[in-house]
Amino acid sequence: MNKKKKGIDAERELIHLFWKSGWAAHRIAGSGSSRYPSPDIIAGNALRRAAVECKITKESSKYFSQEEIISLQSFAQQFGAEAWIAIKFPKKEWFFMNLEDMKESGKMKMIDIALAEMKGLNLSQFLEMKAF
Amino acid sequence: MNKKKKGIDAERELIHLFWKSGWAAHRIAGSGSSRYPSPDIIAGNALRRAAVECKITKESSKYFSQEEIISLQSFAQQFGAEAWIAIKFPKKEWFFMNLEDMKESGKMKMIDIALAEMKGLNLSQFLEMKAF
Repeated sequence: MNKKKKGIDAERELIHLFWKSGWAAHRIAGSGSSRYPSPDIIAGNALRRAAVECKITKESSKYFSQEEIISLQSFAQQFGAEAWIAIKFPKKEWFFMNLEDMKESGKMKMIDIALAEMKGLNLSQFLEMKAF
Repeated sequence: MNKKKKGIDAERELIHLFWKSGWAAHRIAGSGSSRYPSPDIIAGNALRRAAVECKITKESSKYFSQEEIISLQSFAQQFGAEAWIAIKFPKKEWFFMNLEDMKESGKMKMIDIALAEMKGLNLSQFLEMKAF
């Protein structure tokens, strides 16, 4: 399976989890290629809205370009949503990370398993948060 | 140009108009084929969120299946957004219609130019509405 397909499958998996939990969620069309800032997924319920950048990796750490993070942040701000990274490492559940909790790594931002386990929320914790 | 391509182009045009007006907007991936209720477009600013079913037609009236409307309504309710139809007739601007203002027509719902001109909002009127 190629990388893009794996990414989309991961997004779909997360979307199913949102709907199962009573949230509405969908993939954004052309996310990553749009001329406008964009998240991978938009999810919401009556009280909260979340713009989510969704990553799956075989490694124990994942790097993000500043552009990717700025695009997510800028969409979230303009749309009126919380900005989150959802990340899945091998044999781990999804972690939800705040952008402020990412590590700086040269020109990139980074999340590794240790950081995700320390600062990340699992899906239930994420869903149970109060509205910002 | 085929019908699907025309539909997507119309959605893109509307999305540009939203961004130009300071709203964030994107097409939903796989709208219409998703197993979950879905709009064509999701748009929002700091105060309002709108789930939009987007239609362009060469005719002077447009029919909608009940399923399509229920899907839009049900997504909007679960996500926490207003539900709207955006419709473009030949040589007319976009009209934004409330679902309640559509005409019943047998098993379908319908909007024609006369109805759109009577009950519809143009883009500026739509954008200037207060939050629901």
